Amino acid sequence: MKLQVTQENLHKALTNVSRVASSRSSLPVLSNVLIKTSDKRLTIAATNLDIAVTEHIGAKIAQQGAITVPARLMQDLISSLPAGPLDIEVTDNKMVLEAGRFSSSINGVSADEFPAMPTLTNSQEINLETGSLRDALAQVLFAASSDEARPVLTGVYIYQNNDKLVFAATDSYRLAEKEIPVNAAGLSLLIPSQSLQEVLRLLKDDSQQIIIAYDEQQARFTIDETEVVTRLIEGTYPDYKRLLPSSFETTAKLTKKALLEITKVSSLFAREAAGSITISIDAIKNEIRIKSIASQVGENTASAEAEVTGDATITLNSRYILDALNAFSGESIQINVNGKLDPCVITSADDPTYTHVIMPVKS
Amino acid sequence: MKLQVTQENLHKALTNVSRVASSRSSLPVLSNVLIKTSDKRLTIAATNLDIAVTEHIGAKIAQQGAITVPARLMQDLISSLPAGPLDIEVTDNKMVLEAGRFSSSINGVSADEFPAMPTLTNSQEINLETGSLRDALAQVLFAASSDEARPVLTGVYIYQNNDKLVFAATDSYRLAEKEIPVNAAGLSLLIPSQSLQEVLRLLKDDSQQIIIAYDEQQARFTIDETEVVTRLIEGTYPDYKRLLPSSFETTAKLTKKALLEITKVSSLFAREAAGSITISIDAIKNEIRIKSIASQVGENTASAEAEVTGDATITLNSRYILDALNAFSGESIQINVNGKLDPCVITSADDPTYTHVIMPVKS
Repeated sequence: MKLQVTQENLHKALTNVSRVASSRSSLPVLSNVLIKTSDKRLTIAATNLDIAVTEHIGAKIAQQGAITVPARLMQDLISSLPAGPLDIEVTDNKMVLEAGRFSSSINGVSADEFPAMPTLTNSQEINLETGSLRDALAQVLFAASSDEARPVLTGVYIYQNNDKLVFAATDSYRLAEKEIPVNAAGLSLLIPSQSLQEVLRLLKDDSQQIIIAYDEQQARFTIDETEVVTRLIEGTYPDYKRLLPSSFETTAKLTKKALLEITKVSSLFAREAAGSITISIDAIKNEIRIKSIASQVGENTASAEAEVTGDATITLNSRYILDALNAFSGESIQINVNGKLDPCVITSADDPTYTHVIMPVKS
Repeated sequence: MKLQVTQENLHKALTNVSRVASSRSSLPVLSNVLIKTSDKRLTIAATNLDIAVTEHIGAKIAQQGAITVPARLMQDLISSLPAGPLDIEVTDNKMVLEAGRFSSSINGVSADEFPAMPTLTNSQEINLETGSLRDALAQVLFAASSDEARPVLTGVYIYQNNDKLVFAATDSYRLAEKEIPVNAAGLSLLIPSQSLQEVLRLLKDDSQQIIIAYDEQQARFTIDETEVVTRLIEGTYPDYKRLLPSSFETTAKLTKKALLEITKVSSLFAREAAGSITISIDAIKNEIRIKSIASQVGENTASAEAEVTGDATITLNSRYILDALNAFSGESIQINVNGKLDPCVITSADDPTYTHVIMPVKS
């Protein structure tokens, strides 16, 4: 293998790709990146077996070939070199890299030991705008579970419902759901949230079109020159829609800023109680009031004006409320409550495609 | 105790003071801040017994008194409250704090249990400009030792030498020395570097004048409304000047940028060798060349043009070189070397008041 590539292109590709290479894998070669010529281009790829990221860049290729080299060293090295052309030559799994007054020799591992990059069969495709995919992922990803004991909850469920594409994630304590106006008849994918975190990180320019291809086992996101292939999670996603109330006895509408402020202050006194705070919605005073008590430290009451219908008292985890509020765009927030133990639903007139549900704490 | 204070003033004071309160101390009250009226002002103070920070702010005081409350909770609470007036009332070591729609009650500890704030006796004073003190501390603090086995090396030695005030710090592997043009006849202080880190953090506006008062046991830095009192370290600082060569057989002058670049790249291949890199200064090629070898990973050579006098080869810890280069202001750097095992002295024509010395690694 012998080629010339610019530091700028190789640096960009390594930045996009090498994060998924992990030195903690039981298969040591997975801490390497694959560098491989494909006709007139250079392919840079890394995988952790759940997800594979590949980028193609232009290069002047004098001799075809492939090698794998340690991902972290390679990325640190290329990012430290000055901009300009790099000459790369590989002999006997040793990569020699020359750039002006810099000369490096890196011991690699044969590309034959690297797992084959996954491919899709009989795949279907949809197109999404970067902006809507970014919003949807940012609004739901944090609600997915990290507990491998229930694998389906570690994924984001993406499916078609009438003329909307729905993104849903839940850890069983809270649920986030986002709808975007895209038609993809029959689409139903359960994608690991870790993989989607990687996709979210790669989304940059809002004007990009993202292509999502999928078959029974995998999905591929094409973002500019970068391809992310992820396995799908097997299993049936819980029928969460059944749990969502369609009407509410009590609602309170107020500014996001005011609710954030009183929740933050209250949470400081809720550390002993694992974050639990008690919210009272008061139709007579037209206010929402939060009380938190820490026997050691003290107690706090904070209230904010709200447009209220009905009365209610409910105990929620303050961290979940803060997470939810940070996910909403726009200025106004509405809290919707039935009984003390029924799901609390948070909505916003300014962001009608997003719904957030928090299960109450028994108090 | 009963008073009114603004959120803005109390927030600023807590931010400056409460960092030294530590929840890891064996004396639990040291995780609290002292809040105490003194005539028409409010005093906020915290200490870890090595260092005490005190700030005085304006307040409308209706009734004198004092209390201590948990520093972290108090700071988090005040920073989360909206700007505006706060009403504070203390009865039976319970502080009640009212701010508009917020009401908090915090369990405190009697101010009698808080250690007395240290005072100086027969002290002398000097004045320094914020800018020169900040530069001096930023350039020497990182070279002080964190190893309590040799307490004198955990301090910064500040002393008068002719018409200069000298700041010196060393961990015995490297030494940093800064001179500033201040006359303070007879001054000789050995101050814990941890305390000076706190002072550095508090330096803001360049136009401030800092007053340093000192006696045999303590030094007090007055920065605006904030006072920092620190203990001094007992013991004799090593006579490091004796170890500094006054002339050099080999010198190499180059840009800081070029030396940073080749050192960074070389350090990537020096991880196995605990950062050791071998620098060759070559008078014939007029270059400085760094070689680093990692048996597992590979090897690297990088060079940069330099104005060279004499030849030399010396092995140094790359992290120390990077630290030193980041401490120099200005564009040009000069490396000064005698024998392979003699101290390597780094200087800069653009920053003539700063000297950095690195002891070579035996290779």
